[in-house]
Amino acid sequence: MKKIEVCLSPELLRHYEVAHKTVVVIDILRATSCIVTALAHGIEKVVPVAEIEECRAYQAQGYLTAAERNGDHVEGFDFGNSPLAYLDTDLKGRKLAMTTSNGTLALTMAKKMGAGQIVVGAFLNRSALLQYLRDHAREVLLLCAGWKGRVNLEDSVFAGNVLDELLDKFQFSDDACGLARSAYYLGKKNPTRFLADSSHFQRLKERGAMADIDFCLTPDQYDLVPVLQGEALVRLD
Amino acid sequence: MKKIEVCLSPELLRHYEVAHKTVVVIDILRATSCIVTALAHGIEKVVPVAEIEECRAYQAQGYLTAAERNGDHVEGFDFGNSPLAYLDTDLKGRKLAMTTSNGTLALTMAKKMGAGQIVVGAFLNRSALLQYLRDHAREVLLLCAGWKGRVNLEDSVFAGNVLDELLDKFQFSDDACGLARSAYYLGKKNPTRFLADSSHFQRLKERGAMADIDFCLTPDQYDLVPVLQGEALVRLD
Repeated sequence: MKKIEVCLSPELLRHYEVAHKTVVVIDILRATSCIVTALAHGIEKVVPVAEIEECRAYQAQGYLTAAERNGDHVEGFDFGNSPLAYLDTDLKGRKLAMTTSNGTLALTMAKKMGAGQIVVGAFLNRSALLQYLRDHAREVLLLCAGWKGRVNLEDSVFAGNVLDELLDKFQFSDDACGLARSAYYLGKKNPTRFLADSSHFQRLKERGAMADIDFCLTPDQYDLVPVLQGEALVRLD
Repeated sequence: MKKIEVCLSPELLRHYEVAHKTVVVIDILRATSCIVTALAHGIEKVVPVAEIEECRAYQAQGYLTAAERNGDHVEGFDFGNSPLAYLDTDLKGRKLAMTTSNGTLALTMAKKMGAGQIVVGAFLNRSALLQYLRDHAREVLLLCAGWKGRVNLEDSVFAGNVLDELLDKFQFSDDACGLARSAYYLGKKNPTRFLADSSHFQRLKERGAMADIDFCLTPDQYDLVPVLQGEALVRLD
């Protein structure tokens, strides 16, 4: 059986072999939810960048831009990190450059470390991701973006959900799988309640972003998997 | 209420404030289980050191020495990393210097980062540790030693056990608490079975150290808390 592992924080990524693996980057609240939503609503490609200045450079090339730090929309960019912002906008054929506190950092780190393939996971595209991993993936590393180096609960719970669904096809080969799967198990009856005390849930709730949270925790809305090709994430239907 | 947090790997320790906290170092298989056992059986103090050569230097000063790497007893030292080795030996008043792959590294790292206080936890001294944290501790950080930077399941489960017992006195202030507690919950009916597929359990079992595992998972055997005073861990009854 193929192996599957979980890395609970990008800071632990250097302990994992990534060269021949499909790395699934997970930042439920909210970067990977945004990427899935943006591509589902017409954006042609999303370029994840680590720094604000890199993102700004794409503006001059006609890209739409999204920038978030510490949960806030950075001034001077079209979008912050709310997936809802992509719902009502005419985005067909537009290109988007995006930088966030954790998610795009995890993406660029996985790329820098030479991951065999990089895809994006969120509750929003869960079924499509699972189907893709079952049918096409090599060995898999689920990379949780966390929060500034610390682990977080919502990314871990989603990783646990993926693990649980892939039990028949993959062999768990890392103790972090046990942690993620335990959290998924305990929370699966009511994920929103299970996550209610978690740190970024609380942070976003205080900022009035409860609608974002509800949206990001809704599974199976979009039938696509964002895949990194060169510098950009594009949709794989 | 006082706060309690969990750091799942020493490599994430830099994200935690430790200066005013009681840091509980946890390496169930097997360093902190060894430290508790050695102090319970007459060892006067245990000096944890990060490097093999430092440990060797203590031999010249009349110390007993324990050294382990990758699960194996390092040649030329009195002990490896089996707590059972301390049961039948006349250790009264002797001093011990110890170096292991993960546990002593976590101890020395917590010290280097200026932890307010450092104590040692294991299933073997669980009740004594809980009593101490309830009565005397400041805010608490549970530091799991893990395995070479990766998280591991047995340390996380023990951290979850501690969290669960301290719910009435402490406020969880970190998402890692949710992960550790979930794993404890799912495993508590039969910890040995729950941990049977975990990485270091498997590693030790292959080395024929099942008796070590059984011993290390036995709760409440010794009524003492090892506390770091200067360079050495001493027992606090």
